[in-house]
Amino acid sequence: MLSFNLLSTDVRGKARAGVIRTDRGEIETPIFMPVGTVGTVKGVLGPVLTDDIKAQIILGNTYHLFLRPGNDVIQKAGGLHQFMNWKRPILTDSGGFQVFSLADNRKLSEEGVTFRSHIDGGKHFFSPENVVDTQRIIGSDIMMALDECPPGDADYQYAHKSLQLTQNWLKRGHAHFKKTNPLYGKHQAWFPIVQGAGYPDLRRSAARCVTDLGAEGNAIGGLSVGEPTDLMYEMIEVTNEVLPEDKPRYLMGVGTPANILEAIDRGVDMFDCVMPTRNGRNGMLFTSEGIINIKNKKWEHDYSPVDPNGTSWVDRYYSKAYLRHLFVSRELLGPQIASIHNLAFYLWLVKTAREKIIAGNFASWKSKMVQNVAQRI
Amino acid sequence: MLSFNLLSTDVRGKARAGVIRTDRGEIETPIFMPVGTVGTVKGVLGPVLTDDIKAQIILGNTYHLFLRPGNDVIQKAGGLHQFMNWKRPILTDSGGFQVFSLADNRKLSEEGVTFRSHIDGGKHFFSPENVVDTQRIIGSDIMMALDECPPGDADYQYAHKSLQLTQNWLKRGHAHFKKTNPLYGKHQAWFPIVQGAGYPDLRRSAARCVTDLGAEGNAIGGLSVGEPTDLMYEMIEVTNEVLPEDKPRYLMGVGTPANILEAIDRGVDMFDCVMPTRNGRNGMLFTSEGIINIKNKKWEHDYSPVDPNGTSWVDRYYSKAYLRHLFVSRELLGPQIASIHNLAFYLWLVKTAREKIIAGNFASWKSKMVQNVAQRI
Ligand SMILES: [Zn+2]
Ligand SMILES: [Zn+2]
Repeated sequence: MLSFNLLSTDVRGKARAGVIRTDRGEIETPIFMPVGTVGTVKGVLGPVLTDDIKAQIILGNTYHLFLRPGNDVIQKAGGLHQFMNWKRPILTDSGGFQVFSLADNRKLSEEGVTFRSHIDGGKHFFSPENVVDTQRIIGSDIMMALDECPPGDADYQYAHKSLQLTQNWLKRGHAHFKKTNPLYGKHQAWFPIVQGAGYPDLRRSAARCVTDLGAEGNAIGGLSVGEPTDLMYEMIEVTNEVLPEDKPRYLMGVGTPANILEAIDRGVDMFDCVMPTRNGRNGMLFTSEGIINIKNKKWEHDYSPVDPNGTSWVDRYYSKAYLRHLFVSRELLGPQIASIHNLAFYLWLVKTAREKIIAGNFASWKSKMVQNVAQRI
Repeated sequence: MLSFNLLSTDVRGKARAGVIRTDRGEIETPIFMPVGTVGTVKGVLGPVLTDDIKAQIILGNTYHLFLRPGNDVIQKAGGLHQFMNWKRPILTDSGGFQVFSLADNRKLSEEGVTFRSHIDGGKHFFSPENVVDTQRIIGSDIMMALDECPPGDADYQYAHKSLQLTQNWLKRGHAHFKKTNPLYGKHQAWFPIVQGAGYPDLRRSAARCVTDLGAEGNAIGGLSVGEPTDLMYEMIEVTNEVLPEDKPRYLMGVGTPANILEAIDRGVDMFDCVMPTRNGRNGMLFTSEGIINIKNKKWEHDYSPVDPNGTSWVDRYYSKAYLRHLFVSRELLGPQIASIHNLAFYLWLVKTAREKIIAGNFASWKSKMVQNVAQRI
């Protein structure tokens, strides 16, 4: 079983601190989950992820893993945990988002979606049922439902029709989840996803449909896909008013440090995003004082630590001038250091949010922090 | 002062075990020095290089560091050790080799060499004197003389003329070394280089000229540049017959594990090469059983450790199938793991050679090992 204990809720808002218990250990919420697309958090050695970044749970992408190395390799390895040697929980998305954003020649039907691999053009079919089967083979601790994610500017009619398809898929996925079992002796949870684009009534009805499934946790999808930030926050509020309080809430693919703090303030418990690693690889560092573009000339002679307030050893081991030099020289070590720093910062951010919620002073800390983290320094 | 203590010489050959003492610590010879071209061993985090690979000394490239980040940034950092946060010894080449292999529009004269940067086309001039000055700014524990390295197939006349230039440069470099001082309070040694292409008489006369300078150590350059392997071994033998026994001997830019063992057997003490990192980044793993191309299909389902005999933690933390997957998926983590493995293997190889020399059974171990390490598995 996956269980969720709500420890405390912020006195003035909806921010929550809790603990998720899985067969592979506890997850303290709110939590950020580093993205390990194809079974590796890009550029980060296993022990660094475990001991330095202190990731409690990571993400895998079903679409990517299905294409490469493929179900066969992962199943013979004994699942993704064994394959990549990661002992803590893993959440996998269903692959739906990648099919709709990466794959070629998509053909959507009530039955599922046919597509061609962006790697070798091979033809494949994903259904609400077979993505559960693939995630059984991966052995993730939290599996995600297959859904259709409409674009951020989808009109009402499109969003409504898409939501109907998603809701049929959720019911089929849930039924298939119920009649299948884990392959490696560890419980796997299955989370349905609330869609509905930017329309409050669609979000509400989607959240009711999701709630009725009685899953061990629930997700909010289809946000941060091009819509205005305020609309995203509004959709989170609308959705969380309906979603049950005693289940963890996962906001998929979001976002900046400020996005995460605002979503925590609206009752979200779990987050993932490629920003700390992807932007890190481009020289963008997130810190508690603001955003640094380490490639800027202004850091050329700044021999101070990468981040004097940082919680990772790289923050004090290396200087800004040195890290800039690595990026300017396009050295592999630059993206490595920046990824470690950014992931450690994201983990620090949610850990501190949790402490503030428990201490009862989240709101005031958040107001100050959302301003700090968004400014360019 | 840099000192060299010869601890023992193999009973049947010329292999030597010794200790070099520098102001930044001891180096046990024979030693392999990982290459840190622009102030970073590509893809390797500082603590991994120090604690896991256990590098005792690393290499920096004067040409690369001079162009980027430049003397100004390095001097204000307090030298390269401070800049990259590496506390053990550093050896820097003079930049000559890179000027002759990388730079554009070279113009060679008795005075020095004018060239254009391969990065931005900027015009620069290296002389035997100013490369000492740059290495004073870098603060390397061992500085190298400027030399001209003729191609592996140079004819006698060219090689002879080139050697005369190199010998004039050695004398000038040595004189400049003698009248300049370290900038950061730590002794810096200066090593001259034996050239002479594939001609025994040129190598002998070059070695005598180098010996007469009475430097704290001596180097053999211009090998492994396209000549047959047996000729390289012959040139090492010829040179080491002349070079003094009580000074460390450094064979520049060599080579494969078998090359290193053969050169140790001929009395060489110090090595550097980009192979463990460069070939590692392409998926080639050096092991005590032979060479693995981890990208091969044959490893797809091999869930055994990367190297069951390996001395680095990556060898057991990751499987061959997983490492293959990382390379096939072009993931950053693949080159990182392969570089750590290969460097740890090279360090293991010279450490074991040292133990065998001291134990008096180097020759038999070497005969077996040169066959193992060269085969493809
Ligand atoms: Zn994101
Ligand atoms: Zn080499």
